[in-house]
Amino acid sequence: MNIPQSDKKRVVIIGGGFAGLSIAKKLRNKNLQVVLLDKHNYHTFQPLLYQVATGGLEAGSIAYPIRKVIQEYKDFYFRLTSVKEIDTQNQKVISEIGDLNYDYLVIATGSKTNYFGNKEIERNSMSMKTIPQSLNIRSLILENFEQAVLTTNEADKNALINFVLVGAGPTGVELAGALAEMKRAILQKDYPDLDISKMEINLVQSGDRVLNTMSEKSSAAAEKFLVDLGVIVHKNVRVTNYDGRTITTNSDLTFETATVIWTAGVQGAAIQGLDSKSLVERVERIRVNQYNQVVGYDNIFAIGDIASMESEKYPQGHPMMAQPALQQGALLGENLVKLLANKPMKPFEYNDKGSMATIGRNLAVVDLPKYHFNGLFAWFVWMFVHLFSLIGFKNKAVVFLNWVYNYIRFDREGRLIVRPFKKRSFVTFTSDEV
Amino acid sequence: MNIPQSDKKRVVIIGGGFAGLSIAKKLRNKNLQVVLLDKHNYHTFQPLLYQVATGGLEAGSIAYPIRKVIQEYKDFYFRLTSVKEIDTQNQKVISEIGDLNYDYLVIATGSKTNYFGNKEIERNSMSMKTIPQSLNIRSLILENFEQAVLTTNEADKNALINFVLVGAGPTGVELAGALAEMKRAILQKDYPDLDISKMEINLVQSGDRVLNTMSEKSSAAAEKFLVDLGVIVHKNVRVTNYDGRTITTNSDLTFETATVIWTAGVQGAAIQGLDSKSLVERVERIRVNQYNQVVGYDNIFAIGDIASMESEKYPQGHPMMAQPALQQGALLGENLVKLLANKPMKPFEYNDKGSMATIGRNLAVVDLPKYHFNGLFAWFVWMFVHLFSLIGFKNKAVVFLNWVYNYIRFDREGRLIVRPFKKRSFVTFTSDEV
Repeated sequence: MNIPQSDKKRVVIIGGGFAGLSIAKKLRNKNLQVVLLDKHNYHTFQPLLYQVATGGLEAGSIAYPIRKVIQEYKDFYFRLTSVKEIDTQNQKVISEIGDLNYDYLVIATGSKTNYFGNKEIERNSMSMKTIPQSLNIRSLILENFEQAVLTTNEADKNALINFVLVGAGPTGVELAGALAEMKRAILQKDYPDLDISKMEINLVQSGDRVLNTMSEKSSAAAEKFLVDLGVIVHKNVRVTNYDGRTITTNSDLTFETATVIWTAGVQGAAIQGLDSKSLVERVERIRVNQYNQVVGYDNIFAIGDIASMESEKYPQGHPMMAQPALQQGALLGENLVKLLANKPMKPFEYNDKGSMATIGRNLAVVDLPKYHFNGLFAWFVWMFVHLFSLIGFKNKAVVFLNWVYNYIRFDREGRLIVRPFKKRSFVTFTSDEV
Repeated sequence: MNIPQSDKKRVVIIGGGFAGLSIAKKLRNKNLQVVLLDKHNYHTFQPLLYQVATGGLEAGSIAYPIRKVIQEYKDFYFRLTSVKEIDTQNQKVISEIGDLNYDYLVIATGSKTNYFGNKEIERNSMSMKTIPQSLNIRSLILENFEQAVLTTNEADKNALINFVLVGAGPTGVELAGALAEMKRAILQKDYPDLDISKMEINLVQSGDRVLNTMSEKSSAAAEKFLVDLGVIVHKNVRVTNYDGRTITTNSDLTFETATVIWTAGVQGAAIQGLDSKSLVERVERIRVNQYNQVVGYDNIFAIGDIASMESEKYPQGHPMMAQPALQQGALLGENLVKLLANKPMKPFEYNDKGSMATIGRNLAVVDLPKYHFNGLFAWFVWMFVHLFSLIGFKNKAVVFLNWVYNYIRFDREGRLIVRPFKKRSFVTFTSDEV
C-alpha cells in the first residue's frame, strides 16, 4: 500500500463512517502512525440518504471527502480500498490493493442490509445504505414513472407506480413520508397524463408498530402522520418473497410492484479472519468488551454498528445508529493514547441522547430520555440536529438553503435520472402510432 | 408512445437543450399539440459542465428537470427516449419506445464530440458533453490520484498525474484552468505523500492560438493566464493517436498519460433518415434556410448546434454555442405560430452578443461585439451572465453559494468518486508489506 515505515506504532482503521472518523479525529498528531481505509473516498451522512433518494438533496451535500478531514493530520494516511480479510496471526490486513501490517487494528466497517438469507429478495429489491444506492433508488423511482406513461396495460402501470417499503424503522418511515410528499406535490404535476391517485406507498412491517425502537407514543404519532399523508401501513406482516413483480407474505396479502425498498434488517459488515467465538451469529456483529476490545484479541478493537458490547442495559449490544458509533470512536481514540502511555483505559458507557425520525413537513417524532414529543416543534428539533451534525460549513449552508426552498415551494428539484437505466422486462410498451 | 389523439397539429421536438427548450417555451398553450423527446429527463447547462467535472459544483445545480419546465403547459408531452430515425415519407419519428407521427418536426439534437474517425482515441479518451460524462471525468481524476499514491513505479505515477486536454476552445481552456487551480489549492493538500509538482496539465491545440474563435487580444490574454496558472500550452500540434497510455502527435512530441480529455472537435448529433443533400458533410450538421427549415422539406426544421444556416457573414453556419440555439428556438416558435395562421415567417438574423471564457479566479476574457476586455472585471461579467442564465431560482442560489464558498476557501468539496471505477491495466501496484 506504499505506506512509509515509521518508528511509531501503526493504527489501522477500517471504515470512515461515524465511528471511524470519530476515532480518526482523536488520533490526530498523537505520536502514532494512522492508516484509514475505506471503499469510498468520502464520509456519508447516512441519516439523510432518504432525501437524496427522493430528490430533495444532492449527494454531494451529505457526503464529505475523507482526505479533506485528515488534510492536516501528520503521519496519517488514507487508502481507497476494500478489505478482504484480517490475518490476526501475522497482524496484517489483506486488501484489494495489497497487505498492511498493524500494531492496533480498529474495525469500524458499519452495517449492511440483512435479507435474512433470501437471495431472490436480495436480487430484486433495492437497499439504501450508501450514496450510489440512494442515487439508484432516485433514478428507479423516476424511471418507473417514465415507463408508466408509456404503457396502456393497467396492471403494468399500477405495478410501476406501486412502491413497497419493507421495514418500518426510521429509514422506512422517513422514505415512506418523503414518497408521499413527492406524490402530492411533484409527481401529480410532473405526470399529468397519469392518474397519480393510483400511486400507492405501502409500508410493510413484521412487528406490531412502526419505529419499534422508539416510545409507544412516538410510534403511534408516526403512524398517524404516515396515514394522514396517504401511506398504507401494514403491521404484523412478514414478506416471504419477491420475484421482481409479485411480493408474497405470510398472510393472504400480496403486492404487484416494480419497486421494493428493503429496510427490514441490518447486520454487521463483518470481515473474514476473526475467531468465530468473537462473532455474534445471525447479526454478524463482533463481540467486544467494555473497552471495545474484540473478545480474544488484545490489539483488535471494533466500534460502531459492527461492535456488539453486551451489558445489563443493552443485552444485545447498543442500537446500530450514529450516537453509539460517535461515542465509541471518541472514547477509543482517547483509550488508545492511554494504552500507549501505559495508563488504564476508561470503560465505555453509552450516553443515550434519544432518537428521532421525521415523517414529513412539520411532522417529526422525538424521544428524549425523559420526554417524548412530536409535531411541528419536533420537526424543528430534527432539522436543527441534523443540520448541526453535517460535516462542513458549505454542506450545512447548501442543505439549509435546499430545505428552505423545498419547504416554501413544496418542491424537490433533484429529479435527475443519472444512473444506469433498469429495463422492466414485464412492461408491455405501446408502440401504436397515433 | 401513448400520446392522445388530438384535433390540433402536432409538433414533435427532438432535444431539450438550449434550442429545444427555447422553442418549447414559445409553443406553450398555442393551439398545438407538442411532444418533446429527449434521452435525458433533464436540461443540461453545458457551459458549467467543466465545474462539475472538477468538483466545484454538483450535477444537480446545473441541470433542471424538463418535466418541471413544461409542468403547466397544456397538451404538451415529454417522453424519455432516444430517436433512432426519421421516416420523412410517412411523417413519423422512430424511437426506442415506439413511433410517433408529426405534422411539424423540430430537430434540436445538438452536437457531439468529433474524433475525426479515430476509433482508438474515441475508445481511450474522455469527452465532456453530458452530465454523466462530467461525473465520469471527476471520478477518473480522483481515481488517478488514489492509484498514484499506491505505485512506486515513477513512470506509472507520472502518467497517472499527467493530464492532457486536446483542443483549446472554451471547454479545453476552462477545464485546464480549473485543473490548475485544483492542483494548487486542493490536490497538494489532499495528497501530501505525492510530489504534486510533477502533476502536469498539458493543453494541446492544432491551431496557432487558444480560443481561436475569439479575438486575438482575448486569445493572448487567455494564454497568459493559463501559463501563469502552470498549464503547459502546446500550439500547432495535432494529436495523431492515443492508446490509453501514450499520445503521439504529428511532431516529435509525445505524452505518457492516463487521462486524455478530448474537446478538439464537435459535430452535429445527426439523425438517420434525412436526404443526403440536406446534410453538411464532415461536420454532420443539417442544412437549413433562413427560417430554419431543413433544405428539401417543408415541415421539418432544425435549430441550434445541429443546424447549419449559411449566410454571407457565417458561410459555415453559426457558431455551435448557446446564443444561436436560444435565438433560433425562440424565433422558430413564433414562426410556427405564424405558419399556422398563414402569416409570413420572419427570417432569422443572429444577434451576436459576444463570447467569453473563464480561466480561473479573477481571470476571464470577454469579447463584446465592439469591445474586448479581460481580468477581474471580465470574470465578474462571466459569473453574472452564467448565474443569470441558469434555470431556476434554487440552482442560481446554490451555485452562487458554492462559488462564494469556493472563492473564499480556495476549495472544491465535490470530490466524491461515485461512478464506476476504471482500472488502469498498466499500473504496477506495490503490495509490499511495510
